Amino acid sequence: MSVTRRAFIERSAVLAAGALMSRPALPPLPTGRTHKPLGVALVGLGSLSTNQIAPALLRTADCTLAGIVTGTPAKAARWKTQYNLPDRSIYDYTTMERMADNPDIDIVYVVTPNALHAEHSILAARAGKHVLCEKPMEVSVERCEAMIVASKAANRQLAIGYRCQFEPHHLECVRLAKERVLGDVKLISAGFGFPIGDPTQWRLNKALAGGGPLMDVGIYALQSARMLAGEEPVAVSAMMVNTDPVKFKDIEESMTFQLTFPSGVIADCRTSYKVSGMNGFTAYTARGAFGVEPAYGYAGIKAWRSDGVALRFDPIDHFVAELDDFARCVRTGAPTKVPGEEGLRDIRIMMAAYEAARTGRAVNFS
Amino acid sequence: MSVTRRAFIERSAVLAAGALMSRPALPPLPTGRTHKPLGVALVGLGSLSTNQIAPALLRTADCTLAGIVTGTPAKAARWKTQYNLPDRSIYDYTTMERMADNPDIDIVYVVTPNALHAEHSILAARAGKHVLCEKPMEVSVERCEAMIVASKAANRQLAIGYRCQFEPHHLECVRLAKERVLGDVKLISAGFGFPIGDPTQWRLNKALAGGGPLMDVGIYALQSARMLAGEEPVAVSAMMVNTDPVKFKDIEESMTFQLTFPSGVIADCRTSYKVSGMNGFTAYTARGAFGVEPAYGYAGIKAWRSDGVALRFDPIDHFVAELDDFARCVRTGAPTKVPGEEGLRDIRIMMAAYEAARTGRAVNFS
Repeated sequence: MSVTRRAFIERSAVLAAGALMSRPALPPLPTGRTHKPLGVALVGLGSLSTNQIAPALLRTADCTLAGIVTGTPAKAARWKTQYNLPDRSIYDYTTMERMADNPDIDIVYVVTPNALHAEHSILAARAGKHVLCEKPMEVSVERCEAMIVASKAANRQLAIGYRCQFEPHHLECVRLAKERVLGDVKLISAGFGFPIGDPTQWRLNKALAGGGPLMDVGIYALQSARMLAGEEPVAVSAMMVNTDPVKFKDIEESMTFQLTFPSGVIADCRTSYKVSGMNGFTAYTARGAFGVEPAYGYAGIKAWRSDGVALRFDPIDHFVAELDDFARCVRTGAPTKVPGEEGLRDIRIMMAAYEAARTGRAVNFS
Repeated sequence: MSVTRRAFIERSAVLAAGALMSRPALPPLPTGRTHKPLGVALVGLGSLSTNQIAPALLRTADCTLAGIVTGTPAKAARWKTQYNLPDRSIYDYTTMERMADNPDIDIVYVVTPNALHAEHSILAARAGKHVLCEKPMEVSVERCEAMIVASKAANRQLAIGYRCQFEPHHLECVRLAKERVLGDVKLISAGFGFPIGDPTQWRLNKALAGGGPLMDVGIYALQSARMLAGEEPVAVSAMMVNTDPVKFKDIEESMTFQLTFPSGVIADCRTSYKVSGMNGFTAYTARGAFGVEPAYGYAGIKAWRSDGVALRFDPIDHFVAELDDFARCVRTGAPTKVPGEEGLRDIRIMMAAYEAARTGRAVNFS
């Protein structure tokens, strides 16, 4: 990735909502195709697409890899051969709007750096495609709102890649909280971090990432807190540190953030690009506790309950689950449970967390 | 305990430092007694004294139960019989200053409610006794300072009952942090809470407790954070909640607090009177993690390292360890590692955490 800040800012201008709204509503999606899998085009062929999503697409019940968008010709050639893609389904970022004429593509999965999600999601919506966009949704509230507006204007669905919302250990813990199986959840503790490697990667570039570990992995802790609380926070406070300004030029190295919820649940969360082994959550009640650890990887998820009741589920492919669920929504018109509005909620909270950390003042949402 | 707020306020006036300084310095302590154990008087015969400290005194190498101070005649009678105490070593709160004339008592262990610690510690110091005072040291910075002044004026030592500073699993983790065995500690997460029972107990009375779970058990998480960081925090932020204002009239139910340290270590801590199973800490480095869980009970302590190296130590009686260490300090004149100044540091941070939670603003110490 060699997107400069200037290019980024120029690109941002494209997002002005007025221009996006000018296209006429597209014809309704053909929902009768029950036998042919939905075609998914991947936008951005980095390691997530290469190592997780493309392999998952081979195992979905209802999706198939039907196109790619990449700025790297060598990648285009490699993927074309590997996945037997026709030339007309191979795009770069300047041609992807031509997808509008490609009936093989029903869903566009946006897997580009965070600050490009709005541009690519909006282009896809304008091309009449349903959009599945990786988390975090974008790098500002305004960009998320523009994405939602564009998908609604195109009468297409927009989902965020919150794979843990399909993961059975996570879902069981949400059920334990919701049904008060061990009593009311009173306190939630969640953290996710990893020691980041390659100093040249886009995750360390604020213009592309929108922030540091909070944007990339702290969002998982935030999702857990919100899912377990079952409501939206009323306030957030936060602190951040940076001991390595060479590596972390304008992003945080580590951050902690705390949330209070209307019912009095309190959550404290942490994230870091400098730690190992921080990967899980615990929900506490007066009678006990339960949680998932490790929680946020692609595999090896383990859950526990303090009363010793086993929490074991067959492992799933998270990407297969989220893709097939979105395909079901697209086919049936059922709303996705991870819509753009859900992504926007997290962005709003994370932006407030950054403000709280910068100013030393808690941000109230009420 | 039936101490009213009025009585508490009246008692507070006793603490005015000027009055405390007026006594002449006492003669130096006889340090030559190497064969007779040091006599310890317990002030406050609640469950901690009854179930932990008195039994521990039977197992110390260098201490013996030599006196009691209690406001309850029935307790005095019971303890007199059980521990074979002479009448002259049995005091109530109005007579305890007569300890000055009792050579059997070398150390006074103050185990009364938090907001009485200064009064009882200062009376003991004025009676020429070394003081071991339960945590938290007191309920305000000023009271802690008065305790330190009184002990120094009496040329006696003052120690705080930080038993975890003598516990081998805790100490090993502090060593791992200090010696960077798994690399630099970057983030510390610690929590201690329990579902509090009896609604009439003094821990729920702000006038006696000074606060809620932060004062009582959150202090353990704070101690862990400070010990592992090996330095003093530069800022604290905090949030608190209360869903049960009948039980928690003027104290927090749960609280989270975050600390940043000069070297860039960040800690997030949590405490609650409404949760089970929150009892431990983890220190994270780029290479791994280590911690203790459960960490803060009187027994059953377990430590772990992410690299699988076993961290097993023979269980100790925490109270035996802290008592014998303080006896050693008293005998030799060596300074205790848990002096009043150490207790004051925590009180200062906890008071700042309350301020941060009340105002929504982080408090900077620099």
